[in-house]
Amino acid sequence: MSASVTDQEKRKQISVRGIVDVENVGNFKKTFNRHLHYTLVKDRNVATSRDYFFALAHSVKDNLVSRWIRTQQYYYEKDPKRVYYLSLEYYMGRTLQNTMINLGIQGACDEAMYQMGLDIEELEELEEDAGLGNGGLGRLAACFLDSMATLGLASYGYGIRYEYGIFAQKIKNGEQVEEPDDWLRYGNPWEKARPEFMLPVNFYGQVIDTPEGKKWINTQVVFAMPYDNPVPGYKNNVVNTLRLWSAKSPVEFNLKFFNDGDYIQAVIDRNLAENISRVLYPNDNFFEGKELRLKQEYFMVAATLQDIIRRYKASKFGSREHHRTDFDMFPDKVAIQLNDTHPSLAIPELMRILIDVEGLPWEKAWDITTKTCAYTNHTVLPEALERWPTSMLESILPRHLQIIYHINFLHLQDVSAKYPGDVDRLRRMSLIEEEGEKRVNMAHLSIVGSHAINGVAALHSEILKQSVFKDFYELTPEKFQNKTNGITPRRWLLLCNPNLSDIIEEKIGSDWTVHLEQLSQLKQWAKDPVFQRSVMKVKQENKLKLTQMLEKDYGVKVNPASIFDIQVITLN
Amino acid sequence: MSASVTDQEKRKQISVRGIVDVENVGNFKKTFNRHLHYTLVKDRNVATSRDYFFALAHSVKDNLVSRWIRTQQYYYEKDPKRVYYLSLEYYMGRTLQNTMINLGIQGACDEAMYQMGLDIEELEELEEDAGLGNGGLGRLAACFLDSMATLGLASYGYGIRYEYGIFAQKIKNGEQVEEPDDWLRYGNPWEKARPEFMLPVNFYGQVIDTPEGKKWINTQVVFAMPYDNPVPGYKNNVVNTLRLWSAKSPVEFNLKFFNDGDYIQAVIDRNLAENISRVLYPNDNFFEGKELRLKQEYFMVAATLQDIIRRYKASKFGSREHHRTDFDMFPDKVAIQLNDTHPSLAIPELMRILIDVEGLPWEKAWDITTKTCAYTNHTVLPEALERWPTSMLESILPRHLQIIYHINFLHLQDVSAKYPGDVDRLRRMSLIEEEGEKRVNMAHLSIVGSHAINGVAALHSEILKQSVFKDFYELTPEKFQNKTNGITPRRWLLLCNPNLSDIIEEKIGSDWTVHLEQLSQLKQWAKDPVFQRSVMKVKQENKLKLTQMLEKDYGVKVNPASIFDIQVITLN
Repeated sequence: MSASVTDQEKRKQISVRGIVDVENVGNFKKTFNRHLHYTLVKDRNVATSRDYFFALAHSVKDNLVSRWIRTQQYYYEKDPKRVYYLSLEYYMGRTLQNTMINLGIQGACDEAMYQMGLDIEELEELEEDAGLGNGGLGRLAACFLDSMATLGLASYGYGIRYEYGIFAQKIKNGEQVEEPDDWLRYGNPWEKARPEFMLPVNFYGQVIDTPEGKKWINTQVVFAMPYDNPVPGYKNNVVNTLRLWSAKSPVEFNLKFFNDGDYIQAVIDRNLAENISRVLYPNDNFFEGKELRLKQEYFMVAATLQDIIRRYKASKFGSREHHRTDFDMFPDKVAIQLNDTHPSLAIPELMRILIDVEGLPWEKAWDITTKTCAYTNHTVLPEALERWPTSMLESILPRHLQIIYHINFLHLQDVSAKYPGDVDRLRRMSLIEEEGEKRVNMAHLSIVGSHAINGVAALHSEILKQSVFKDFYELTPEKFQNKTNGITPRRWLLLCNPNLSDIIEEKIGSDWTVHLEQLSQLKQWAKDPVFQRSVMKVKQENKLKLTQMLEKDYGVKVNPASIFDIQVITLN
Repeated sequence: MSASVTDQEKRKQISVRGIVDVENVGNFKKTFNRHLHYTLVKDRNVATSRDYFFALAHSVKDNLVSRWIRTQQYYYEKDPKRVYYLSLEYYMGRTLQNTMINLGIQGACDEAMYQMGLDIEELEELEEDAGLGNGGLGRLAACFLDSMATLGLASYGYGIRYEYGIFAQKIKNGEQVEEPDDWLRYGNPWEKARPEFMLPVNFYGQVIDTPEGKKWINTQVVFAMPYDNPVPGYKNNVVNTLRLWSAKSPVEFNLKFFNDGDYIQAVIDRNLAENISRVLYPNDNFFEGKELRLKQEYFMVAATLQDIIRRYKASKFGSREHHRTDFDMFPDKVAIQLNDTHPSLAIPELMRILIDVEGLPWEKAWDITTKTCAYTNHTVLPEALERWPTSMLESILPRHLQIIYHINFLHLQDVSAKYPGDVDRLRRMSLIEEEGEKRVNMAHLSIVGSHAINGVAALHSEILKQSVFKDFYELTPEKFQNKTNGITPRRWLLLCNPNLSDIIEEKIGSDWTVHLEQLSQLKQWAKDPVFQRSVMKVKQENKLKLTQMLEKDYGVKVNPASIFDIQVITLN
């Protein structure tokens, strides 16, 4: 337990010197009442439970804000290498309780609500889930963000602010029905819109040759409006940012139909461009190949890369005039992690910016791109692999298709050089699949354009090397590695199972929340009947809670004894 | 000037005893900094001018909130007669400066911003206009709200929260272009969403006969989400509410297409229902007869009447169990003013609720409806008069068409009784026009369903009686009256022309801001050369300001001497 203090200290901490202490119960109640009055415009005679939830959420968020600003200032001043995690899905779930735990203010909040006669658990239930993911891939992204903040890494999540997240499954008249998840209906107390960082994203148009190189012209523009969400580390005062993009039509819009009554239709049509961020695609293990999905992917990638490059160019605090003008340092300052192939257009997009906008030669741009990008593969199911028709890319992203063709040309030259005459290998390793409709294999693009490729389990990573991506492994074995998926023990043990956490803490202290390997210390009590009984008791209680919840919410009666053990820890 | 104090006292005031004084400069700066930090999540190193505007607006709004809550509590406790102003348009313009003036805190705000090194005029320019009206009709509605709050009347404005207001006219390359007015893009600091008062509105469906009467079934539902906007009176601590409705699709939505990939399209289609509150129709002097406009009108009326009846039924504070169950008192407690015929479906809708929902007999319901409703006519232009095709009503509002037919049947009986055998008069006075496509004349409906009809200028009201509505005037002369349109002298003199206001105040004090007739006291100085010179000086300065603005914003050079006098006061 003494080791844990040292260890805790070693983690990156942000100084909170001078930050007003709003963490005691009295101050917290004041802040809560202020929000109820001024933010919710209610008094306690007419406030609803949802008003109380929002007052609580805003009060907890106020505790985040100083840490959030300080963390970002710290990054701006120190200019460390930034990790950019790009993912089309973030399954964040609820924010309130996780934030209270990570800030270490859950006790104060509990007490404040108790003193005011409010049931904090009831209020917590009113929070909408941020269900911006379908399952493992999205939850992994969320856990990575939590983990990076807890490690004090200068990291940023980038994704899409879907207006409708994962559909809600309801039982009606004994039948399952799906409902769109209108999670933003009551507002989102955690996010902050950042209209000052709104960025244009181009679609369609043509590519022309000019003396200065290729130009992508006559495009249709959609704007990406960022919404920042705080990602607090565990008790280290670090607050990182998850930036989610929302589609906005451009203001400029020549309403030439005004006088013949088409004005209304014109404004309504304009709204259609905003469908890009309307809804999360419901399957992550099936490739549908829809144009709207391709637009979502490019929308996120294009806005994010502009933001990354803006941040790279801005040098230290207070001297905005001194921008970085060359990209030599780019891979030392920027890491881009692609969560599956959904954001893999980042590779041709970064190439396009470096070549067409920044004027770099191809070789230099390619060196920077591959050193910057890394790719996480999530599946070997053929029906899940993204393979975009070249005809669709030709129409929506004509310049990117050109770049992909040229990447492929150079890539196949490399393959030929190593395996002269091996035509079948060339066919297998091409980024372009020629059978049937011509398509771009986005996994191949991701492997070729990255310096690191990982699977998410030891066996999975072996399969990648030995089967699915065997040819690529033979060409560049140094790129392939494994990163076994994990989940944060803060949310999935400390928060989900407080009673079990208490038992663990009694035995080995609380540092396992940031050093999960310390759980192995529990082995010494594995055969201890007192310890065994206390664990069994918690399990029984949790099963009982589950059956009560199933009965209350779904009217389903279940015998607690028939529930399988919920495995929350694996001692390996 | 001594009279003015007494007079001021006579106006309705809301007690501010116990409200924390946030009106001094030091406190205001603290509030401003708190909002910049916690609400905008910025510090002064990175804040934009728009951040400062929002911090200022939120700080000013904080000054409103206690008064707003107290005013509404006062109404709830006293249960006075409420005035409901129904209008499809409210041309509110900017809110910040008007609010500071009406709260009497402009001096403190000026000083606070000055001390912080910020230019308050520059920040004021960043506020988006609430351009939810096309011109006179909408601005009249806004001035009425201001005036009713200043008089301390328990009044409510009801309308639609258009996502796009009146189009912005821009000059580009010497040509005028219209742009949709995306006024909510950066958020609206004044409004408060009230999801707990969201109400369903029905469209389409069929009417069936049941033993309990007519039933309107199989309808399509759209929800109306209210957004409350504060309407402060002038220095009397009264803050009334303008409630604007926004269309929301219902959550329930059977996504049966989920597995064949139509899920996305289904969610996007769902969004189309929200087009009802998407955009303000750009003409108020031309009737287009579009289905979407009819839906807007009914949407506003149906949500508003539910709200009015809920408020009527709720009896005094703290005893929600004791609801009013009969409607005898309704016209004593509720006045509904129809701003032109756009909200005239309130008449058949109130009839429908009283008969089909509340179970009242027709005669009783009609007595209540006509005693409750009053109608303001704005135009005698034939092309502006609303005449909805019965086929459209039959499809969208079948029950309302039945009610209109029956109102017409009884109305024509009355006409026949007074003018036996005058078939041409019957034809002229019918609510239903039979020439060409069968249509409902909404002005005729409004006259028959109201106890008071007014024009908006003496001459206009005479024309109504002598020409356009001559037949109706002969039938019910007691209904016809005149209310000359006015504008609030707070916004249109005190706020717009501060220097002229200062000169006036020197002579006659400041009470003309609530008693405009006092301006006639200025007559005694009309020939005074010193007074004349000071008025001329202000005029010259304003002209100079106008020419500078024209040059700066439009690049137009104008000689100040060539500008006609801007008439701001008419001494009659």
